[in-house]
Amino acid sequence: VSNGPPELYPVRGVKIGTVRSGERYRGRDDLVVLELSPGSHVAATFTRNAFCAAPVQLAKTHKNIAASRYLLINAGNANAVTGTRGLEDARACCQMLSEHAGCPVESVLPFSTGVIGTYLNLDAMSAAIPVAFQSVHADGWMAAAHAIMTTDTVPKGISRELSWQGERFVVTGIAKGAGMIRPDMATMLAFIATDMRVSTGVLQQCLEAAVGGSFHRITVDGDTSTNDACVLIATGQGRMDEITDTESEAYAILSEAVADVCLRLAQAVVRDGEGATKFVSIVVRQGSSQAECLRVAYTIAHSPLVKTALFASDPNWGRILAAVGRAGVPTLDISKVALWLDHIQVVQEGAVAVNYKEDDGREVMVKPEFTIGVDLGRGSASATIWTCDLSQQYVTINAEYRT
Amino acid sequence: VSNGPPELYPVRGVKIGTVRSGERYRGRDDLVVLELSPGSHVAATFTRNAFCAAPVQLAKTHKNIAASRYLLINAGNANAVTGTRGLEDARACCQMLSEHAGCPVESVLPFSTGVIGTYLNLDAMSAAIPVAFQSVHADGWMAAAHAIMTTDTVPKGISRELSWQGERFVVTGIAKGAGMIRPDMATMLAFIATDMRVSTGVLQQCLEAAVGGSFHRITVDGDTSTNDACVLIATGQGRMDEITDTESEAYAILSEAVADVCLRLAQAVVRDGEGATKFVSIVVRQGSSQAECLRVAYTIAHSPLVKTALFASDPNWGRILAAVGRAGVPTLDISKVALWLDHIQVVQEGAVAVNYKEDDGREVMVKPEFTIGVDLGRGSASATIWTCDLSQQYVTINAEYRT
Repeated sequence: VSNGPPELYPVRGVKIGTVRSGERYRGRDDLVVLELSPGSHVAATFTRNAFCAAPVQLAKTHKNIAASRYLLINAGNANAVTGTRGLEDARACCQMLSEHAGCPVESVLPFSTGVIGTYLNLDAMSAAIPVAFQSVHADGWMAAAHAIMTTDTVPKGISRELSWQGERFVVTGIAKGAGMIRPDMATMLAFIATDMRVSTGVLQQCLEAAVGGSFHRITVDGDTSTNDACVLIATGQGRMDEITDTESEAYAILSEAVADVCLRLAQAVVRDGEGATKFVSIVVRQGSSQAECLRVAYTIAHSPLVKTALFASDPNWGRILAAVGRAGVPTLDISKVALWLDHIQVVQEGAVAVNYKEDDGREVMVKPEFTIGVDLGRGSASATIWTCDLSQQYVTINAEYRT
Repeated sequence: VSNGPPELYPVRGVKIGTVRSGERYRGRDDLVVLELSPGSHVAATFTRNAFCAAPVQLAKTHKNIAASRYLLINAGNANAVTGTRGLEDARACCQMLSEHAGCPVESVLPFSTGVIGTYLNLDAMSAAIPVAFQSVHADGWMAAAHAIMTTDTVPKGISRELSWQGERFVVTGIAKGAGMIRPDMATMLAFIATDMRVSTGVLQQCLEAAVGGSFHRITVDGDTSTNDACVLIATGQGRMDEITDTESEAYAILSEAVADVCLRLAQAVVRDGEGATKFVSIVVRQGSSQAECLRVAYTIAHSPLVKTALFASDPNWGRILAAVGRAGVPTLDISKVALWLDHIQVVQEGAVAVNYKEDDGREVMVKPEFTIGVDLGRGSASATIWTCDLSQQYVTINAEYRT
């Protein structure tokens, strides 16, 4: 259920170089250098997993010390759960790049994705980094989308053009991930850049709002990675006043585009879910809070019984209701609960709908994309998440990954 | 990973009748009547799923109104998510039995397990119930263990003999469930009886303690059923003073036996887990609270990535640590975390153990039963749970169940 990305527009102020390091993969690029023009602002969100990887720890630190000028990304080795040596290795890679670039080591932000628990091959890195550095050019986005892949079956990228006061701007983003989130190909990375001029504080707000409605709303298997990171860059290379206010019109234009790019990247990750054959939206309405709606939605999305029914195109609504029932919603009145498959009402007032026919439910569920709707009948809050099914192929991929 | 039960001893004061109702299954008994001698005390725990089934709602009510004399159990139809009509049907079944038995309808406790969302066939019930009632006898435990099965591949039962002041007593229990807990074969039922004499309040405490350390410590897929129930009966038919004190010696003897019977029944459910090829104990130690240890243990047990690695006999410890890292333990210091596969130390101080060899880890994981041990290094609390792996067969069973 995946398609490759369309054209990716260059972003003024961002140059990209890719190279094959030979660290893990053969015959394909696996290392990326993003060079940002001076004055670029960088916002980032990172995994909340306590076992956050060495590059994540270092990127957080570096970002606070110096203005970021380079992103250094390698695929195939996550450099996670590698202890003190892993931190030293990540710092050594930043050092290699900073020496060639003539910038402080803290101006380099490192990102890694791949196998957990293996030390980086520093010889391969030291040979590859200068090559990537010397080859940076403005049109490298698609090559980077390919180079950051691990178990992804398709590259993921999206571009949007914006107009502000007669000037053309762009937002371009790439992501990798095929499983939310498989910790041994430690996973979700996304890099989004715009040539708009945005203050650092507003940029971070813009990113967090976008991530909250996109990457934080998808799930393949409920697992979260040690390496997740999402970065938003504003190079400020276009002619415009800096956006310093989230109430401004320019912010509205930018944030809509960033949110859209994040959402489409996030949905591309779910569509590329390991073994996935269905792309399913779960919409929970009439909750007393958004948190409660999300809890119900994730309980449905993570139920192995629901996921196998999705795979089987089986309108087994008893499994969905049982997930709703165990989601921990206090004082849930089941006689007010309704369930929908697209526009087909399956359950009303806590029991099977009078006019529901199993064939109608099956007709929805055989489709590659559909929506499960749940009305809780207790308020006006709602939430939407996106997920996929659980197939034998998921088990096979994850059982055989290291063999 | 399952074995059938050994001999099940009769319990003085309990008679059992079984019959084939034809409700769903052909050629096998699927309806059970347990007759309890007058003066029996009954304790019970029920599902916490908000969508609790009609028989569960009715059993709770009846238990509070009158002394329980009969348990009426049917397999194949859960009578869950059936609304008002489901409640009326469950009550009608109780009425049929109470009329034959000449007792108040409230003296009958109903239990159902099977498909969700289908109405009971009352004609089949009304034909079967008198036959089961008339055939009750003391040696019916094994027949009942068979008759309450749904997707179980083996019947589950266990008996213990006790000695108290020179008199022989017994605790006998049966259970069904093959998946903790599959909501469409709405699932876990357990019935345990003793001929000891126990006050109602103490009996309930005895049951809750036993369930807390057994049925509440197992998981196959994290799903919980609309119909779960566990019942402990004390007929008081042996000569002894009533146990009215949880500090007494007689209580210690009884509660140890009940806890043991519950634990062995619960483990039998996991061993019969859908598609399971491994029986895995997860022991989390050195936590600051038992709740925190349980949270870590269940996060590991429910991770599809861990479960597929168990299936593959792959010592993929990165997946286990990533689950520990996302379990929501506040201020977890990863440099103090250790991980063990049986007696093999895999991780020490948050990184791979110096002497660990992958072959040693694999040697443990190819075994059909082993223990994952996690030391959190932050306290003295601990918790143990039992789970199984996730195989393609699980997906196949649950994808094809209704086809």
